[in-house]
Amino acid sequence: MLILKKKDIIQHVDLNEDLIPIIEEAFTSLSKGETVMPPIMRIDIEKFHGESDVKAAYIDGLDSFAIKIASGFFDNPKLGLPSSNGLMVLLDSETGVIKSVLLDEGYLTDTRTAIAGAIAAKYLSNQDASTVGIIGAGIQARLQLKAILLVRKINKINLWARDKVKVDEFIDSLKDLKIDINISESCKDLASSSDIIITTTPSKKPLLEFDWIKKGTHITAMGSDAEQKNELHPTMIKLCDKYVPDSQAQTTILGELHHAIKENLISPDDKFDDLGSIIIDPSLGRKNKEDITICDLTGTGVQDTAIARYTYNICKRNNLGIKT
Amino acid sequence: MLILKKKDIIQHVDLNEDLIPIIEEAFTSLSKGETVMPPIMRIDIEKFHGESDVKAAYIDGLDSFAIKIASGFFDNPKLGLPSSNGLMVLLDSETGVIKSVLLDEGYLTDTRTAIAGAIAAKYLSNQDASTVGIIGAGIQARLQLKAILLVRKINKINLWARDKVKVDEFIDSLKDLKIDINISESCKDLASSSDIIITTTPSKKPLLEFDWIKKGTHITAMGSDAEQKNELHPTMIKLCDKYVPDSQAQTTILGELHHAIKENLISPDDKFDDLGSIIIDPSLGRKNKEDITICDLTGTGVQDTAIARYTYNICKRNNLGIKT
Repeated sequence: MLILKKKDIIQHVDLNEDLIPIIEEAFTSLSKGETVMPPIMRIDIEKFHGESDVKAAYIDGLDSFAIKIASGFFDNPKLGLPSSNGLMVLLDSETGVIKSVLLDEGYLTDTRTAIAGAIAAKYLSNQDASTVGIIGAGIQARLQLKAILLVRKINKINLWARDKVKVDEFIDSLKDLKIDINISESCKDLASSSDIIITTTPSKKPLLEFDWIKKGTHITAMGSDAEQKNELHPTMIKLCDKYVPDSQAQTTILGELHHAIKENLISPDDKFDDLGSIIIDPSLGRKNKEDITICDLTGTGVQDTAIARYTYNICKRNNLGIKT
Repeated sequence: MLILKKKDIIQHVDLNEDLIPIIEEAFTSLSKGETVMPPIMRIDIEKFHGESDVKAAYIDGLDSFAIKIASGFFDNPKLGLPSSNGLMVLLDSETGVIKSVLLDEGYLTDTRTAIAGAIAAKYLSNQDASTVGIIGAGIQARLQLKAILLVRKINKINLWARDKVKVDEFIDSLKDLKIDINISESCKDLASSSDIIITTTPSKKPLLEFDWIKKGTHITAMGSDAEQKNELHPTMIKLCDKYVPDSQAQTTILGELHHAIKENLISPDDKFDDLGSIIIDPSLGRKNKEDITICDLTGTGVQDTAIARYTYNICKRNNLGIKT
């Protein structure tokens, strides 16, 4: 059994192009029904403004699968601690024997989430999309931006976040990028000049409205991973040309779709092509340059299994970690 | 962060009286509604005859909570491996920071399950119960027997199991006990002369019928932890004098109760006093010596949190484990 610490993991796993096919394959397995992916388990500790989620997925044919714990404790920054934390456990598919405990502290979750954003943009945004609007200024804002650069030639970044101090820090972290950076006055302002918009907030009220979105825009909403979270006005799901969930079973409960169903804008019986289906057959996605597309990411266990396996193999090959 | 291996854990945690109040307290917290205990997550890998369960519970007021992975891969013995495996993760309740990974390989699950059996017998069986009937011959059969000896003065053991080789091994393991041991011809035979019956099998068909049970018997059914498993004929739940679930939310889905509801013998709206309620007020349990009582154990996250905390504290105090 191999115990891997974050310091081991970051030596060999980082947000790069190699991960794109790894995570794509996870999504296509999910779409093909070749997976066992139970509903997310959530332990809410309201008293401390915290929650722990458990995600898991077995992908048929793979010799291992992951069970992942990811926690968000939102008062932690006041204590000088990061909000996010967690670990992944990799189990042998045939025997249940634990192959590895990956003490990644949420790093792998952050990474696979950003890669999903890159994949969404790769398949759904226009090829010549060159301006990205990022809403939010947390870790995922930075990682989603880094990820999008893997798949699109971006020459302008629009930023908007509630916390102006964080926006300044974010801009500071981008100074080596040599890309034009603009602080938007509002989300409406941001939307009016972005080809791709990525929402990365824990907002409980919609930040974007359909009328603000220009023709041809692709939007990835990745902030909502709980019932009460909501970044897009529910009408956007109904009015856009293509709505794509990572897992409809999850977005029906947790994602942007959930709010559109609750408002009776979408029937709970409607079926949408998911991200894996679009990867398998990209013609199911954007039909023309004017389409407005939305990808709703809630984060799936198959992504965790894919990145945990990748990380374990690469670290094992490099003799990293503690063998027990 | 402390990594504890099974060899560390077994030095200080074993099936003894100290654990009874620890696990009792977990059940009473559950009954009082002082817990956050989400539904069990299950990953079924049918191809390999295996499953991994995830259980978790936060108990209000405690500074840590556990998330537990327990796997059962039933072809493992053919490969020379134990069927059970698993680990527990202990998280700080206030920050989500991981305090410990307990690589117990299922040992703590086995232990806390046996202690729950002792608690059920302590509160529900007659004080002078002296003959115990054990159905099954696996690890839990042995541990449940060991646990019952903590709470009742047993002078005769009746055994029945499908696998006669395992029965012989079981008897062999008991030779130091100096208690009269009898191999029953059938479950009916076993029931006719047992004051306490403990069923510990993965049976999918009922092993016991109500007519076979003598007056005053207490039965603990602990084998069923999945929808298809069933050890007691469903009429037993209806006809017994007191039915006690560990967690009715769980036994409605997974336990013996589930089958009684399915057969329309019990209404899904009926409410039963759970084990924690009986611990708080034992007068809710057995009313007289002639009562037939049943305790339905599916295994709860609160038990895992209780034993993980106990184990962490005792191992930390003794400077065991790997600090990372």
